[in-house]
Order: sequence, then structure tokens, then C-alpha cells
Amino acid sequence: MKIALAQINPVIGSLSENRKKIITYIQQARKSGAELVVFPEMALLGYPPEDLLLLPSFIDALNSELKLLIEATENIILIVGTVRENPSGGEKGLYNTAAIIENKVLVGFQDKALLPDYDVFNERRYFEPAARTDVWSLSSKRVGITICEDIWQHAGAVEYSTYARDPIVELATQNPDFVVNLSASPFYVQKHETRLKVCAKASKTLKCPILFCNQVGGNDSLIFDGYSMHLNESGELVQNAKGFEEDLLLIDLEKKYQPYQLKPDPVEDLYKALVIGLRDYFQKQGFSRACFGLSGGIDSAVVACIAKEALGAENILALTLPSRFSSTGSVIDSEVLAQKLGIELQEISIEPPFESYLELLNASFKEKPSGVTTENLQARIRGMLLMAFSNHFGYLILSTGNKSEMAMGYATLYGDMCGGLGVLNDVYKKHIYELARWVKVIPQAILDKPPSAELSPDQKDSDTLPDYAIIDLVLQEYIEHHHSPVEIAKEQNLELPLVKDLIRRIHRNEYKRRQAPPGLRVTKRSFTVGRRFPIVQKWNVDEE
Amino acid sequence: MKIALAQINPVIGSLSENRKKIITYIQQARKSGAELVVFPEMALLGYPPEDLLLLPSFIDALNSELKLLIEATENIILIVGTVRENPSGGEKGLYNTAAIIENKVLVGFQDKALLPDYDVFNERRYFEPAARTDVWSLSSKRVGITICEDIWQHAGAVEYSTYARDPIVELATQNPDFVVNLSASPFYVQKHETRLKVCAKASKTLKCPILFCNQVGGNDSLIFDGYSMHLNESGELVQNAKGFEEDLLLIDLEKKYQPYQLKPDPVEDLYKALVIGLRDYFQKQGFSRACFGLSGGIDSAVVACIAKEALGAENILALTLPSRFSSTGSVIDSEVLAQKLGIELQEISIEPPFESYLELLNASFKEKPSGVTTENLQARIRGMLLMAFSNHFGYLILSTGNKSEMAMGYATLYGDMCGGLGVLNDVYKKHIYELARWVKVIPQAILDKPPSAELSPDQKDSDTLPDYAIIDLVLQEYIEHHHSPVEIAKEQNLELPLVKDLIRRIHRNEYKRRQAPPGLRVTKRSFTVGRRFPIVQKWNVDEE
Repeated sequence: MKIALAQINPVIGSLSENRKKIITYIQQARKSGAELVVFPEMALLGYPPEDLLLLPSFIDALNSELKLLIEATENIILIVGTVRENPSGGEKGLYNTAAIIENKVLVGFQDKALLPDYDVFNERRYFEPAARTDVWSLSSKRVGITICEDIWQHAGAVEYSTYARDPIVELATQNPDFVVNLSASPFYVQKHETRLKVCAKASKTLKCPILFCNQVGGNDSLIFDGYSMHLNESGELVQNAKGFEEDLLLIDLEKKYQPYQLKPDPVEDLYKALVIGLRDYFQKQGFSRACFGLSGGIDSAVVACIAKEALGAENILALTLPSRFSSTGSVIDSEVLAQKLGIELQEISIEPPFESYLELLNASFKEKPSGVTTENLQARIRGMLLMAFSNHFGYLILSTGNKSEMAMGYATLYGDMCGGLGVLNDVYKKHIYELARWVKVIPQAILDKPPSAELSPDQKDSDTLPDYAIIDLVLQEYIEHHHSPVEIAKEQNLELPLVKDLIRRIHRNEYKRRQAPPGLRVTKRSFTVGRRFPIVQKWNVDEE
Repeated sequence: MKIALAQINPVIGSLSENRKKIITYIQQARKSGAELVVFPEMALLGYPPEDLLLLPSFIDALNSELKLLIEATENIILIVGTVRENPSGGEKGLYNTAAIIENKVLVGFQDKALLPDYDVFNERRYFEPAARTDVWSLSSKRVGITICEDIWQHAGAVEYSTYARDPIVELATQNPDFVVNLSASPFYVQKHETRLKVCAKASKTLKCPILFCNQVGGNDSLIFDGYSMHLNESGELVQNAKGFEEDLLLIDLEKKYQPYQLKPDPVEDLYKALVIGLRDYFQKQGFSRACFGLSGGIDSAVVACIAKEALGAENILALTLPSRFSSTGSVIDSEVLAQKLGIELQEISIEPPFESYLELLNASFKEKPSGVTTENLQARIRGMLLMAFSNHFGYLILSTGNKSEMAMGYATLYGDMCGGLGVLNDVYKKHIYELARWVKVIPQAILDKPPSAELSPDQKDSDTLPDYAIIDLVLQEYIEHHHSPVEIAKEQNLELPLVKDLIRRIHRNEYKRRQAPPGLRVTKRSFTVGRRFPIVQKWNVDEE
């Protein structure tokens, strides 16, 4: 049997366009001789559709589109991710499901059994779990059908939850010839390795091939990396689709494939993830042009590279916005980088409005504005100028702050936090350096200079913050692993008061992050989506 | 038996302070002769604690505090809402629970059976449902113990979910003498009436009294109104605690109480909700002083009244920030109102920085900045000045936009949307007028003037928007009831293209709201919390 895995990039809610895309891939699969074509989880809707699922008219439209899909399955079997109404009672009115269609006949639905409700997932908000996971007789084959999370429990790879059931065990008693998995499995760095283990464990237990079909593309904060896979009955990877682009993976089950290792470079994957995340955030909304402040620092330099790659040099405007505190390097280094990238750079001194505000505030306050007031003023004037370019020319503004700064609150609300997308909001400072070296085009002067906001004379981040290497260590232990300050101090050989101080900063700055632009999620636990803390809470203070 | 319902206002995560408060109320209950004292759902943690629940050290600390509480129960029975580890397997590692303690002995835990996962609730993210709902023998009584949602299914009052079980039915077979309900039931206008029906239905089925104990106070966006209640075995309200403040309701079960109606004025309740929401947002974070722009319009006038009531006139600074487009009324009316309220008003013309920006942008753009650029500039200069006052003097800034504007995107990101709290973000324009009339102090000139942003010559909201009465109608039908454009047009006798246009605006402005300050939630479905839509999605465009 020949099977095609259609790794597509749907647009959320764009039902008729998604349906057309699916039909195009069905035709392509048929042309390639495939008897069965598989699409990702919720391919018809785009994942995650969130509260669109609560609109009855949306579900009606989805049903209509499914009917049109059924008509397009002449001489082929289609397994496609969608959502259906739950006709049989239970807590929630919908199922996350795979529609199984054979030669214009709807054979049935295989619903999702394990519904993740943790981190970025809220599937219990909408869905009822499947009654059971079945093997389906399709053509001459016995096909097990699973949806994303369904295969994760078996490998012990689920965090925050332990499901009472295990669809792989349920399938094992039903002797499938192969098992397909429809996924919308969001990216974080090196997630691919975990997925490989999950699929291998399932195929080893089932002693049959696993065909894993993943969504690709960016949807708001979530990025889907693709990398659909074919593992043989021994749990060995024998075929895979591309990462970070649409692909059709053709599998011939009668053919003997050689197993191989797949180890994508984590830095390259991170870069590609940010590129596709940015590109889709723009294209799916109909934006083509990006504008941002190029400060001469490493963060905005990396953003410039990513934006150019995603949108093309001709669609990028960088502004260098010096004040009296800006180093000469800030403008010169920006010019060198802009030239190397072939992007437009405009220089606008923020001194005239800065002067004007200082005069106004001096008079209103009846004293000199404080240091933090003066620093934030500059960042906010820059934000205002960027937004004026956005309003006047239709640029979407990129904010360039990184995860370490967002954690520490080392960013100005309504200043450098302005923008439609926070490209690096989920990238630790240490990974920014890795990206910067990897792209190769960033001038050494930018790589070498110590981090500085340049908002007061000779300011350095290290004046008020410990080294970013230490910050990143504490952040990862606390944010991703929920280790306590005492544990972190002990494990990482750090002073307890320092660790506590950093964690206090994380909590204290929740209010800033709540108003941050959406970011691209590339770690296991991001501020931008999937992490929910109250703004007003005193846990951290009590802890002392 | 004498029972005390302790309607308390905990601070989220402030475990030792909450424990101390609980002990104070236990002592008061004991002094009043109560044999049993009941506290709200999660009284020891504050509700909702969100991802604090994922920190093992937080759960450890909670267990320690519970031990200290146990020590404080000499000669009294305590039923208190907390969280406990789930020792018996299942999907999630925690229970939302009521600890039952009698004379320094932990009798057991009654876990919550129905876990809401919709709207503002995400309890499936953390909790496993109770195995069963029991009647407990306490002193000489048979006591049914339920937690919030547990009693809602029986009255058919749950939206978005239909649970497979019904704790009231489970309890009915066990003949309780009375049933207590520990709640953290968030406010929206007239929710009290629904709660009364829910309690009445339960007590009628069970033929026993229901003692409903609710949390009070504001926690971020959620406001808890209190109004704890005692309904007799016929489902009649016979006692209630105060709304919007802490209270200890003493109940003598041997005594015959007269039933009565409770119909709080919805406008007064809305006002009180906003006052406590604002006050707690400040006090629980340690802020005392608020600053905001007083524009001469009705929204900021209402905010001024609420802020004064919540924080005291001496803690309020209003800024009137006229530009060349401001009407004379804007300053004069603001002065009259500030004087009536006894709050400080400062006038700062935004013309100098406005001029400075226009000049800079003229040069950079090589043309005159567009209308929307110029309008947003003014709003953003005002935002920057407010933030400068915040940075320099420590004011927390209030944003004054209303729900109708937030829906339409009729607000400037980083401009009038600046602030720590969006006081009216969930209040429809029509309710703003009701509040304004109700407070009585707002000058007639402010009540009478047509809505205007005053950002261009003779601008009125009605230049680009239909009447707010129509907007509010469509918003409520679409946002709260998920009716389709076609249904709304038909039911409300409106033109379909108009309805579609308004709904398109709602979706198109998701990106702005994502960066709005947290608002106070006072309707059934708010933008600020509990409503989740993707920014990038094309459903609405397809709909046409």
C-alpha cells in the first residue's frame, strides 16, 4: 500500500481555503499513486482554533466543508483532522476527530482519546474524550488511527498529566498493520527528538509501522515544525518530511527502507522556527513589511536577520534612533549590518521630542524627572516613532526583547515592548548569541559589546543585573522545571538570596509581560502562551 | 446547631496571611457560639491561584499552613477550602478540596466533583474530579459538603458543559441535615439571581437547608461579590451576608427565619464591584495612588468617581491633557468634576511634544503624517505623560476605555490603552451612562456631550461608528450568546452588512486587546479574561 502524509500549513478558521489546499494535496497524492492520504490534526480548521469552536455557525461551516471534501475523494482514502459534534452526551459538545473517507463515502470518525490540558493546551475546554480507539479496515489493511497526544502516554512522555488509559495498549490487542498519527505538535527546541522516542515506543509495542503526520507553520505564538515521519515496525526512522515547510511524504509499505538518524542542528531549527513564525504571522494577516529599531545591540541584529529571511530585504525598514546616551557604535554598527543585509536604515535623533518632554515634565513635576522616568521616556519616544511609521506606512512593528529581559522586566512597557510581534520573547540571551554566531553576517563589534540599554551615561545591563549566564540558568530551572529557590541554589551552586531575588523579579514583572506583544514560542515553557500566573499574588514575598 | 459562614477576602498565594485571617474568623465564630465555621473555596490560597499550583514548593507550603490551621480548631468544626495532592492516581495530581477539621483532628477531605473548564475557569488543568460526594457526620449532624460548581449542574445552570454526574443527586440518597457549599463564584451583573436559583433548586431536591459561603474581593480581573446565603429546606432565602465586603454570617439552624426577597440594584452592584476590584488591585499590590487622564468625557468621569471611592480623594491625581483639538468643555468640565470630587487636577498642554513629533515626522516621512498617525500621536503623548507621572511619583495609571470601544478597536494602543488597570474594559457604553447617572456627581455637560476622542477637528465617534446602542446590542448577542450575524440581523432587525461589519471589527482588533491592561470582569463574557481567540485567523473574512 502506498500512503501519502500531507504535511500542510493551514490558516486558522480559513475553512474554504484550507479545504481547497487539502483537495490540491489529495490530487497530488493520487497522482503519486497513493491509495491513502493522511492530513494533520484539525487540518481543516488550523490548530489551535480556540474559542472559534464555541461559535455554532463555525461548526456548521466546518460540516459543510467536510461534505465538499468527501466529494473530492474519488478512488482514494482520506484521513483528515477536523472537529465534530458529540452526539452521544458527555461533558463537552465536540470531539477532536479524524474523518475517515473512502471513495466519496464517509466511513466514520476516530475521535481523540487523550486530551491535553496543560501548558499551551486547553482541549478539555472544548472536547469530550473518545469512547475508544479502534483499528479500521481500509482497503485490505488494518489501520490504527490516533491523534497527537494519543501516542504520548505510552512513552511516558506526557508532563503535568497521567491519563488513565493508553490508546497504544488498546490498539495492541487489535493487531493493526500500521498506525497513523495526526498531529499538531508545536515546536520547541529539540522536541523532534522526544517525538522520535514517542513514535519508536509505540511502533515497538505494536510491532508495526507508525506514520506520524504533523502540521507545519506558525499560528500566533505556536510554531509547528513539520518533520512528519515514517518509523518501521522496529521503531526505526526510515523516512521523514521536511522541517518548517509544507511537504508530501510518499510511503510505500511494501518497500524496505534503510533506517537512519535524524539530528537537525538545534540552532538552525531555532532560526528556521523564528523565520516561519514571523513569516506566517505576517502573511496570514496580509502584512508584508516590517519595521523595528536597530539599536546596535545583538537582539535587534538577530531580529534583522530573521525578518530579512522571512520577508525579503526589500520589505524591511530599520530605524536607528539615537539619543544623547547612545554610543557612536550604536549607529555605525547598525549601518554596517543594514548594508550587509541590504535593508533600508533610517536615522532619526530622538533628541527634539526628548528635550520637549523633559522641559514639560520639569515644569509639571517642579523637579528633575527621576532616572527611571528619563530612561523610560527615551524608550517610549522610540516606540512612538516606530508606531508612527506603522500608522503612516502600514509596517508591522517588531519588538526585539529577549526572554531573559522579559523575565527580569528589563524592558520598557509602551517603549521597546511596542510591536505586533515579539520575535525573541521566548529566546534566552544565551541562545541569542548562538543565533547571532550561526547567521554569520552580524559584525563582530555587535557580538562583542556588553549588553546595554544605553538609556543613561555608560549604562550596562550588568550594573543592575547579574550575568545573563546566571540569569538564564535560574530561569530555566524555575520556569521550565518549577524547582524551588532552595533547590536551584543547591543544584547550581548559587547564593540563595541571588536566586530568590531573580525569582522575585520574574513574578514582580508579570504585569509587564501581560501587555507584551505576542511572542514566538520556542521553549518548553514560554511567557507568551501556556504559562499563567496572577499579577496580584504574594507567594513570592511569603517565600522569603 | 449554630454555624458561621466566613466570607473572607484572601490574597492569592499569601498563605500565612490567609491562614492568620482564617484563624481570626475562627476565633470570632467561636466567640459567637458557632459549633461549625465554613470558609470559601480555596480560602487558604485565594482563588484563582493559576499556575502557582504547579510549583511543588507552593503545595508543600500549603500543607504546612493547613497543619497550623488544624491546631487552631479547639472546640470548633472547620470546613475550609484548600488544595490537596491526589494520592490515588488519575489524570491530574491535585484535588480542589474542602478540609474538614474537628477539634484539632483532620476528619477528612471532601473533593470537588464538577470541575469547570470554560469561560474564566480552567480547573481541568490542575485537578482530578472527586471520586464521590459524601455526607459527613459532624457533631450530631449529617452534613453534605459541596464546592461551587458541584451544585450548579442540578439546576441546569451550567453553560458550555454538561457533566455526567450530579452531586446533589448523590447527596439526596444520603439524607443530609444540611448542605454547605464553599464557593469562589465570580461576579457579573445579576449573577446573584442565578446563584439564588441554583441554591433553591438544590435545597428543594434535598429538602434541607443550603449554606452557601462565597469568597469576596478582587483578584486581578475577577471580582467576588460575597452575598453568602442561607436558604431553608423549602429553597427560600432566609439570611444573607453583605455584598462586596468581608462578613461573618451566623446561622442558628434551630431558629425559624422569615423568608425574604433579595434584589440588589444592578447599577449599584456594578459600581461596588468596580470599586472593590480597583481597590483590591491596588491594595493587594501595595499601591495607594492612582493617576489617569480626565478628558471631559463620560468614561474618565466615571473612573474618577470609582477611583475616589476606592482609594480616597487624596490619593487621586487627574491630568487634563488638552491639544489643539480639545474642546474648551474638555478642560472646564474636568475642572468642575475634579472640584466636586475634591481630587487634584493638573493641566498640561500636549502641544510642545506634539509639535516636536510632527516636525520630526514631516522630515522623516517627507510628507505630512496621515490622519490616523496624527490622532494616535496625541493619544500616545498623553499615555507617555501619564507613565512619566507613574515612573516619577509611583502612581498606578488607570486606563479609562470601555468595552464597546475595546470591541471596536476604538482606542490607541500605547496611548489611552496605557495603564495598570482598565477599570471599564468590561463595561458597555450603555452601562457607563447608567453608572454616570447613578453616582449623581457628574456634571450634566459631561452626560450630554456626544462621545468624541477629540483627536481631530470636530471629531465625533459617530463619524466612523454607528450609535453605541446598536453596537452594544450586536456585541452582547455575538460575544455573550455566540449568535451568528444572520441571526443577529434577523432578531434585532438590523442590516446584515452592518452586523457583519461590527463583528469583523471585533475580530480584527483582537491584536489590540491582547496588549490591553487587565480589566475588571463584570459581564458574563469579557475580553479581559475567559475569552480566547487567535489574533491571526480568517473565519470572519470567510463568513461574508
